[in-house]
Amino acid sequence: MPKSKETAHANLKNLYRIFTVPEAPESTLGAIDQAISEDVSGFLRTHIVALERNLEQIEADFLSTAIPEEPLFVSDYTEFVKEKLVSQSVHTAAPGFVGHMTSALPYFMLPLSRIMTALNQNLVKVETSKAFTPMERQVLAMLHRLVYRHRSDFYPQWVHNSRHALGAFCSGGTIANVTALWVARNRLLGACDDFRGIANEGLQRSLQHLGADGLAVLVSRRGHYSLAKAADLLGIGRDNLVLIDTDDKNRVDLACLRGQLKQLQQRNIRPLALVGIAGTTETGNVDPLDEMADLAAEWNCHFHVDAAWGGPTLFSDRYRHLLRGIERADSVTLDAHKQLYVPMGAGMVVFKDPTALSAIEHHAAYILRQGSKDLGSHTLEGSRPGKSMLVHAGLSIIGRKGYELLIDMGIERAHTFAERIRQHPDFELTSEPELNILTYRYCPLTVCRALPDLEVTQSCQVNRLLDQINRLIQKEQREAGKTFVSRTRLRSKIYGKKIITVLRVVLANPLTTDGILEAVLKEQSDLGTQPEIMRLISQIERLIATSSTPDSTAGD
Amino acid sequence: MPKSKETAHANLKNLYRIFTVPEAPESTLGAIDQAISEDVSGFLRTHIVALERNLEQIEADFLSTAIPEEPLFVSDYTEFVKEKLVSQSVHTAAPGFVGHMTSALPYFMLPLSRIMTALNQNLVKVETSKAFTPMERQVLAMLHRLVYRHRSDFYPQWVHNSRHALGAFCSGGTIANVTALWVARNRLLGACDDFRGIANEGLQRSLQHLGADGLAVLVSRRGHYSLAKAADLLGIGRDNLVLIDTDDKNRVDLACLRGQLKQLQQRNIRPLALVGIAGTTETGNVDPLDEMADLAAEWNCHFHVDAAWGGPTLFSDRYRHLLRGIERADSVTLDAHKQLYVPMGAGMVVFKDPTALSAIEHHAAYILRQGSKDLGSHTLEGSRPGKSMLVHAGLSIIGRKGYELLIDMGIERAHTFAERIRQHPDFELTSEPELNILTYRYCPLTVCRALPDLEVTQSCQVNRLLDQINRLIQKEQREAGKTFVSRTRLRSKIYGKKIITVLRVVLANPLTTDGILEAVLKEQSDLGTQPEIMRLISQIERLIATSSTPDSTAGD
Repeated sequence: MPKSKETAHANLKNLYRIFTVPEAPESTLGAIDQAISEDVSGFLRTHIVALERNLEQIEADFLSTAIPEEPLFVSDYTEFVKEKLVSQSVHTAAPGFVGHMTSALPYFMLPLSRIMTALNQNLVKVETSKAFTPMERQVLAMLHRLVYRHRSDFYPQWVHNSRHALGAFCSGGTIANVTALWVARNRLLGACDDFRGIANEGLQRSLQHLGADGLAVLVSRRGHYSLAKAADLLGIGRDNLVLIDTDDKNRVDLACLRGQLKQLQQRNIRPLALVGIAGTTETGNVDPLDEMADLAAEWNCHFHVDAAWGGPTLFSDRYRHLLRGIERADSVTLDAHKQLYVPMGAGMVVFKDPTALSAIEHHAAYILRQGSKDLGSHTLEGSRPGKSMLVHAGLSIIGRKGYELLIDMGIERAHTFAERIRQHPDFELTSEPELNILTYRYCPLTVCRALPDLEVTQSCQVNRLLDQINRLIQKEQREAGKTFVSRTRLRSKIYGKKIITVLRVVLANPLTTDGILEAVLKEQSDLGTQPEIMRLISQIERLIATSSTPDSTAGD
Repeated sequence: MPKSKETAHANLKNLYRIFTVPEAPESTLGAIDQAISEDVSGFLRTHIVALERNLEQIEADFLSTAIPEEPLFVSDYTEFVKEKLVSQSVHTAAPGFVGHMTSALPYFMLPLSRIMTALNQNLVKVETSKAFTPMERQVLAMLHRLVYRHRSDFYPQWVHNSRHALGAFCSGGTIANVTALWVARNRLLGACDDFRGIANEGLQRSLQHLGADGLAVLVSRRGHYSLAKAADLLGIGRDNLVLIDTDDKNRVDLACLRGQLKQLQQRNIRPLALVGIAGTTETGNVDPLDEMADLAAEWNCHFHVDAAWGGPTLFSDRYRHLLRGIERADSVTLDAHKQLYVPMGAGMVVFKDPTALSAIEHHAAYILRQGSKDLGSHTLEGSRPGKSMLVHAGLSIIGRKGYELLIDMGIERAHTFAERIRQHPDFELTSEPELNILTYRYCPLTVCRALPDLEVTQSCQVNRLLDQINRLIQKEQREAGKTFVSRTRLRSKIYGKKIITVLRVVLANPLTTDGILEAVLKEQSDLGTQPEIMRLISQIERLIATSSTPDSTAGD
């Protein structure tokens, strides 16, 4: 054999190997795999270093833009993964990581994920998913029933109906929200008489047909940013995502909402949808869904509820009432990778009307044929993995009561933590927890007490300095890598609706104890003694002092 | 302790357990997990039964719509998964499963997927992904470079640029195509003077500002159905997805394309984008990309290339030229879960102009802040898993040369198989393979020879009967479960552009041998002797006989 042919032959043999021969258990990859099987959290604790490198240093390991010419040994690549990727990733499952909507995963999710990956089903069509299609249809029906509470005899005609789907399984809440508004838009502007519907004729002709100058979606200022993306994508325009002021509890102000609806009417802009939030991303509050449903009925528009975060509260007998009215929503978004404890990449939207998704139905010649049960004919996405299997697993193994316990624990922990913050001399609670999210800020008691009496200018200056302090604390704490809270900017009821920077805590990890939360506060409190922060506090104290001087002089 | 408190306490303990204690290796789940680690394909062969149950029977296992109240033992659930789900799923990795774009997975994808799942990073923001963000940026840059072939000194300023992204990682090709057209639309209708851009003002005002009566996207009839979804979603309307006829080789007919552009101009409809296809889903053909780039430049519209399937042909020195002109595209879609051999759920779109994604940029108060390197500010999706790690692994371990070998093998196998079909007395090749996809149909030699001489009515009747036969063969073969090809309906160059049903084969699985393909044909050929098919063939023969009789009489 000539040299080059011999090499090609050897390459070919190696190539077959990677598609057939598994890694030896004693290899590096095999060992990591084994270690993760045996104890994920232990493995992660050992391999995710507390002392982080900054992002620019990490980037140095990911600079080359040339695709490597030559194959690499799996073991060499695995070393790279361990040293450069795993060790520099974020321990999202750590009990002290309470800044975002990530959590520990139930251990069975890992081996089941592997089965899912190995099967590599594609849910777009039955031909590449078989039993996974009925399984996903069942999952959608279960969530539909959780939300709408229909009796069991409602479902047999819909669950496995080849012409319909009770909802759409998506890669996440964003696609779910987009799907809901897409359906709402296409139903409002559906075919009638000789108008062939927006799906065919487009938005401009549809508005002409409707006789309106535009469409609007209304949601509180706490609405998720995916709604703005949806308004852009669907051709409605971000200007027509009308943000409604909130009340003291971060819930949509119904009087403002009514006022805005009237204003839109005067401008001949048709309200397409009201969006209620069941668990705002930043503060975990729930809009008055029942009243919003009334308004939606009155104005004849679609009522969507974004329950990506709070939806699973419906599992709880004690707290379900917080979402009262959700059963009147035309569509509801839920994220399984949040409080259903499924790995990243699993969202859902369910529709009250089992025929609603017909508004976006589509077919093709090689799949999704009329009459097939292919789920792909009713989803925004095309090829999709079998993630619904993990939702099915969670619902089956944890059960309604298990999820109830998780929900109840989280909400109660949030209340306990809020009380602790109220009593702490260094912090100020900036939003009361309704579900399991709350916000607060570093603000020493003396400053807290002085603030309400300051004049507007001084108050603004003090708040800006407090913003700086809280940004610093959040950053320092994140970089120290022991615990993590996030930050955001909120209009505060306390300070004349000024926007202030606050720290944000999400309490969904069942491994987060009160003790860990105490440690989070302690770390922040200790950061308050850092020179840079001390300097800012001195500035605040001087401002308060000078501000009170003229007043007291005047009083003389 | 009172009974109820005791139970609650026990439940709580169990709940902690599922978040911390891994499954014992000797448990059912542990054993399956182990079996999959040791030999995926062996495990699947054992567990995916050849004799399938029909869908209605399978649905019986997924009927209940009530979420189970009580928790279930993991081992019990695992039994259910094994018996009802795994055994009834589709063996998409089987070498004889050549009907869709699924394939065997390189073995290292499984343990690496597990690491990815265990880390549960969320790529929407650096705070929940850290090293995964630079890693994904690097992957996007590598694919960008594969397509656009810029020199390495082009990249340092872009790869880790906090204000830009060279592309977007998506759940699949559909979202990638939607993203590309979204960007195209928002760039065409960008802010200028006192017009604040379509993103803010919406489609209707934008068209007024542009002075056009609509937008259009032009693509050949072989375009993927996701483009119709995109046209609907973006408010353009499916009517304005202009489908251009194809030539004999399933490539867009450039004369027709030019003609349509002129017609649109006369109707004051602005061509938003031309879409070239690099690997049509049904036949694997590549549009004349270079000529399309000329046209797009001439008409000043966005040029998108859907290379979801064929993109990786760029790895091959021998076949890269087939995609000549792709480097002139404004945006290109690639699917990693197709010919990059990554598990389901990984697509990408890259943009020639590194600032293009600014057209859809968005921010929020709690993440995606201006100046952050959060990738979520430039993606349609929000929360996303770390799937790009598996692309990184594939590029690193298989390397450019490894992928080249896979591509070359697939294309060559398709040519060999096409030749075999040409020589087979029972089959007719209906599209020549250009990449690694081809179509053919069951059509006995005598029928094949007689068909061109038949009158139109007879020819149509014969073709309709052949359609029936091919549908039957495909269905029977699928249900027998040994091998699988798909079917579609295509306009055939052979029969006066009539639409006929054809069998479709996708040859990307490196484990598919010529011998297996021979078995696929044999099975189909054998199915031809089934009574129902024999009956249909007799009908065809009678039609041919009656049709030729008058002619021969006339000749007397």
